[in-house]
Amino acid sequence: MKINENYTSIENNYLFAEIAKKVREYKDRGPKRPVISLGIGDVTQPIAPAVIEAMHRAVDEMSHSRTLRGYSPDCGYDFLIQAILKHDFVDRNIHVEADEIIISDGAKSDTGNIGDIIGRDNLVAITDPSYPVYVDTNLMAGRKIELLPCDPSNSFVPSFPKGKADVIYLCYPNNPTGTVLTKEQLGRWVDYAVRNRSLILFDAAYEAFISNDENIPHSIFEIEGAREVAIEFRSFSKTAGFTGLRCGYTVVPKDLTALTSGGKAVSLNALWKRRQSTKFNGASYIVQRGAEAVFSPQGRRQTRETIAYYMRNAETIKKSLEASGLTCYGGKDAPYIWCRTPKGLTSWEFFDLMLNEAQVVGTPGSGFGPSGEGFFRFTAFGRREDTIEAADRIRTFFLS
Amino acid sequence: MKINENYTSIENNYLFAEIAKKVREYKDRGPKRPVISLGIGDVTQPIAPAVIEAMHRAVDEMSHSRTLRGYSPDCGYDFLIQAILKHDFVDRNIHVEADEIIISDGAKSDTGNIGDIIGRDNLVAITDPSYPVYVDTNLMAGRKIELLPCDPSNSFVPSFPKGKADVIYLCYPNNPTGTVLTKEQLGRWVDYAVRNRSLILFDAAYEAFISNDENIPHSIFEIEGAREVAIEFRSFSKTAGFTGLRCGYTVVPKDLTALTSGGKAVSLNALWKRRQSTKFNGASYIVQRGAEAVFSPQGRRQTRETIAYYMRNAETIKKSLEASGLTCYGGKDAPYIWCRTPKGLTSWEFFDLMLNEAQVVGTPGSGFGPSGEGFFRFTAFGRREDTIEAADRIRTFFLS
Repeated sequence: MKINENYTSIENNYLFAEIAKKVREYKDRGPKRPVISLGIGDVTQPIAPAVIEAMHRAVDEMSHSRTLRGYSPDCGYDFLIQAILKHDFVDRNIHVEADEIIISDGAKSDTGNIGDIIGRDNLVAITDPSYPVYVDTNLMAGRKIELLPCDPSNSFVPSFPKGKADVIYLCYPNNPTGTVLTKEQLGRWVDYAVRNRSLILFDAAYEAFISNDENIPHSIFEIEGAREVAIEFRSFSKTAGFTGLRCGYTVVPKDLTALTSGGKAVSLNALWKRRQSTKFNGASYIVQRGAEAVFSPQGRRQTRETIAYYMRNAETIKKSLEASGLTCYGGKDAPYIWCRTPKGLTSWEFFDLMLNEAQVVGTPGSGFGPSGEGFFRFTAFGRREDTIEAADRIRTFFLS
Repeated sequence: MKINENYTSIENNYLFAEIAKKVREYKDRGPKRPVISLGIGDVTQPIAPAVIEAMHRAVDEMSHSRTLRGYSPDCGYDFLIQAILKHDFVDRNIHVEADEIIISDGAKSDTGNIGDIIGRDNLVAITDPSYPVYVDTNLMAGRKIELLPCDPSNSFVPSFPKGKADVIYLCYPNNPTGTVLTKEQLGRWVDYAVRNRSLILFDAAYEAFISNDENIPHSIFEIEGAREVAIEFRSFSKTAGFTGLRCGYTVVPKDLTALTSGGKAVSLNALWKRRQSTKFNGASYIVQRGAEAVFSPQGRRQTRETIAYYMRNAETIKKSLEASGLTCYGGKDAPYIWCRTPKGLTSWEFFDLMLNEAQVVGTPGSGFGPSGEGFFRFTAFGRREDTIEAADRIRTFFLS
């Protein structure tokens, strides 16, 4: 039996596993005060009461033969698709249709599995730094990758690739930098893709964190022409705290086609549905009912309050870092603050400094790619009191 | 952008979609009595009370900051892994270790996604008829397939492939034929794999339906040598009615290695964990707590009762078919009855006959592969009263 040897070319050390190991070792040495993590992007606030109620109801349905739900439709229940369609698209005047929304167990699965329908012989452009899944899954498939550096020198707006990119990953609001693209900036990428017949894989997992700014798109489908070149990934993980519940969705417009080597146009919507109906069996019914409740009036109010809570954390962290003389990006339309390390420290040196001197854990930017070296990511997903305490410790360390 | 063109070689009509269409059209014509489905293998009995209670508790945990669970470990919570280890393996004296059990959202995902770590240049042997996912996912990956016919002429025991098979799919108790392999018969396949350095992908989704028979293995790891050649898939879908909840697991022994083209031994356990931690984010916490409760004393008693309920259905169907003069297989250690169509009817002709004359829906055997032609699958997952009524109708039709 021959394995997929591309796997042997990927590094084994996953960023967050390495951080966890370092923190564990540090804790074993008995630090003078509790370690506060503003590292991994996991949520801390409870699931909205409207969602909890909906999930209890769904659990109860499973306990009676008459209301039991067996296999979900592979691509999701219509009740959830319709709720998404109305609130995420129709109410924002964005043209998306019900059969273009495909429900899944989360954006990590979708951004990983999308590679299934993409040929091996494509040049893939990925912004750098980025969510490690983009690079790793393309290495697993044996595709060539061109990184597109994003740093203060280009205001975190990626330049077009040197090669003709067939597939382009864009994530805005961005993980890890917390920066955004304006409609005009994203429009240039859509034009590039139209011109070059490229596919844009647009990760909008953080769109709920965009502040009131008409110029920043929540969906790539706000941009003219995008329906012919883009797939969009959405998540309930950060929007509504579903990291442990698991639900997301992918939008694949029916206008999006690719040519086979024989010149035949193939619908990517049909391909993705074929993939999902063959290798996936639907998201859990209970979780789909929970996701539906995110869009109820109470659910919307409650999840918005939680997002506001996290964004107050972002402001607290940012103020502390700036008062400490550090340069920061993001934190306005995204739950991440991307901080330049001081005095030329590497990302991991700064990690050690923060852990040893402030007992605060963040994420070394170099873990997100070469352009992340010399940067550090703080997340706004901590508890309020922990975040305030961490911000105080950092400021005290730098100003004392 | 170039697509994965292997997708264009797969037929678009999925078996169960075609059945659903035919049934819908028939119902629109206003049949004289309600249609009863013994077709798709979906469950009808409520989830066990112990599981319902555990899921309610887990939902409640999600409503408080102190007990909220964020991201699950990618390969599953230890509480579930330990419960599986004890009850499915240690208590049966089967050697499996905790870090060899990898939790997922179901066996369909696992049997589909396992292809990710397998190279393209392998000859894949698949028993015929079979669960369509095996064939479809290998076509998607562009692998060569040899079908291994299973029919009454070989007592549904597949012969070894003509070519040297690198990968072999075995599913026992079998879907769709309901037949089993004895330990001795499965042992011959393990020996074949050891001799040929092949990988056996063993789908044991239906092991809970095995009657008290020491000779029929619940796990391939009951067979000596299997730890070096086999991966096993398990599901809570049929065992505990989790079709709409989504949970399963895969066992990848650490003894299982494959050689790279450079001759280096690679652990498939490590590869599968790398795949899952990159393209999957853990099964839902709520569902993992539900799955854990399947192994509680109450959960075990309750799920066993439901399995007994379904197996009484199997007996009812089998008796009716045999009284009607039809030849049947399975239904003793599996929830499926595999019935030879009478008078040389094709599988779809028999489907139409059953629908039009008895208003009973089954699954045409030809939908599971060429060796399924001339056979028909009935499932035991219906409600008791529906199953009795369907059995009566079939007997009445044939004997009148």
